[in-house]
Amino acid sequence: MRVEFDGGALSGFQRQLGVRTVQAELEAAWQRWLGEAVHAASSSRTDAGVHARAMPVLVRTAAEVPDKAVVFGMNAMLPDDIAVISAQQMPETFHVRHDAVGKRYIYRLRVSPVRSPLRRRDRWHIRHQALDVAAMQRAALAMQGEHDFAGFRAASCVARSTVRSLSRVEVSGEGEALEIAVEGNAFLQNMVRIIAGTLVEVGKGRKDAGDIPAVLASGDRKQAGPTAPAHGLTLDEVFYGPPGARQGLEHKQLLSRLALRDR
Amino acid sequence: MRVEFDGGALSGFQRQLGVRTVQAELEAAWQRWLGEAVHAASSSRTDAGVHARAMPVLVRTAAEVPDKAVVFGMNAMLPDDIAVISAQQMPETFHVRHDAVGKRYIYRLRVSPVRSPLRRRDRWHIRHQALDVAAMQRAALAMQGEHDFAGFRAASCVARSTVRSLSRVEVSGEGEALEIAVEGNAFLQNMVRIIAGTLVEVGKGRKDAGDIPAVLASGDRKQAGPTAPAHGLTLDEVFYGPPGARQGLEHKQLLSRLALRDR
Repeated sequence: MRVEFDGGALSGFQRQLGVRTVQAELEAAWQRWLGEAVHAASSSRTDAGVHARAMPVLVRTAAEVPDKAVVFGMNAMLPDDIAVISAQQMPETFHVRHDAVGKRYIYRLRVSPVRSPLRRRDRWHIRHQALDVAAMQRAALAMQGEHDFAGFRAASCVARSTVRSLSRVEVSGEGEALEIAVEGNAFLQNMVRIIAGTLVEVGKGRKDAGDIPAVLASGDRKQAGPTAPAHGLTLDEVFYGPPGARQGLEHKQLLSRLALRDR
Repeated sequence: MRVEFDGGALSGFQRQLGVRTVQAELEAAWQRWLGEAVHAASSSRTDAGVHARAMPVLVRTAAEVPDKAVVFGMNAMLPDDIAVISAQQMPETFHVRHDAVGKRYIYRLRVSPVRSPLRRRDRWHIRHQALDVAAMQRAALAMQGEHDFAGFRAASCVARSTVRSLSRVEVSGEGEALEIAVEGNAFLQNMVRIIAGTLVEVGKGRKDAGDIPAVLASGDRKQAGPTAPAHGLTLDEVFYGPPGARQGLEHKQLLSRLALRDR
């Protein structure tokens, strides 16, 4: 399934006791719909408050239902802030996390001295007259490619390697509405939010675009900018290679590179 | 003041006992900010659930505060879903309702068999694959100009004359996101929502664009479409003539025509 959700009242994807999560809501909806207990697995964990336009979620089911019936059956059972936007039967060998070859996140900013009630749920409000977008674009370019992002992860991040490859870091828009698009094959915890926080520091003139290589090389969390708030972030898309792509790491890495180069 | 608000949790502009309204929140914020009891008057009442991008609100105050201080002072006191986006001291003779020469409303649609959690707050969800936008545009054109809109108002509407002049009824956008812009000098209760409901009937093929003149001529509420839900509607802008414009009805009507012709 591809799942869209408004993360504002959700504590991320992964099931946790005592809070609303996407996983728990999907599993409960499936249970109500077909009377079947399933496990909902995703390509990504998302933080509390983060949104998704199309998060892939895999469910193993004994039920034989047409793809379209999944969309309408599940949406009748799900709460307003979560919807299944498409569904597709996958081969038995498909792995929703390992087979993902890339992801695109969008981080949205509203730049204005005045806050906006109508934009408050999906944009980080920067209380400035304007940001230096050209400087942000230079800094974004310096983040593209393969780097050690050790300085761009949460203290709680347990990934062993901190080298990640970003095929796209792009700042677009003008005036009050800016967007930061980040694409890569894998991400550290809070990485996109720290990238956004760092780019905003550059936009405010507190950091220089030319310092980004040194910030990356330092591996020091304190050199990077603050972690931008969750509500500005949307998981926009997760990319998969052709069916049967996962045939050992080399093939996967190759596919990953191909997919990233294509964009 | 120009006031932006997310109407989702508000019962319209006008103060009512026991519910949250824009007027009550503005007056309470002013009281908290300056310790002064004021009356907040607007150009428009809006229905519960309707949003505003820039609703004019007039307050008579004894306080001497710079325009900018009003914006920041009030926004510090107002709840998240209401903000003052600009403020300007007006001449003593200014009347926020009588001096308005035109208003623009935007009605937003999402056209898709599948609902969207991220778009659910500001768009009416039409569960169709597509609407016939060209037919809607023809119907919109037929609504432009001066007509008796007796069939396009709520049963509770008490306006004596039902003749209104619309300078613009325009359907734009493509695919899943459509917008209906409606501009005129004055509106009957629910008029824009009934216009939107009627245009959607045309888009679904249930009404013919060529029948709009007859629907208007009938003056029969049952001939028009349903009242579209409040959450799709935003009061986008209210237009004023030059200062001192209100010098008798004739002058005002002249200005109104000028303002409308200019667009």
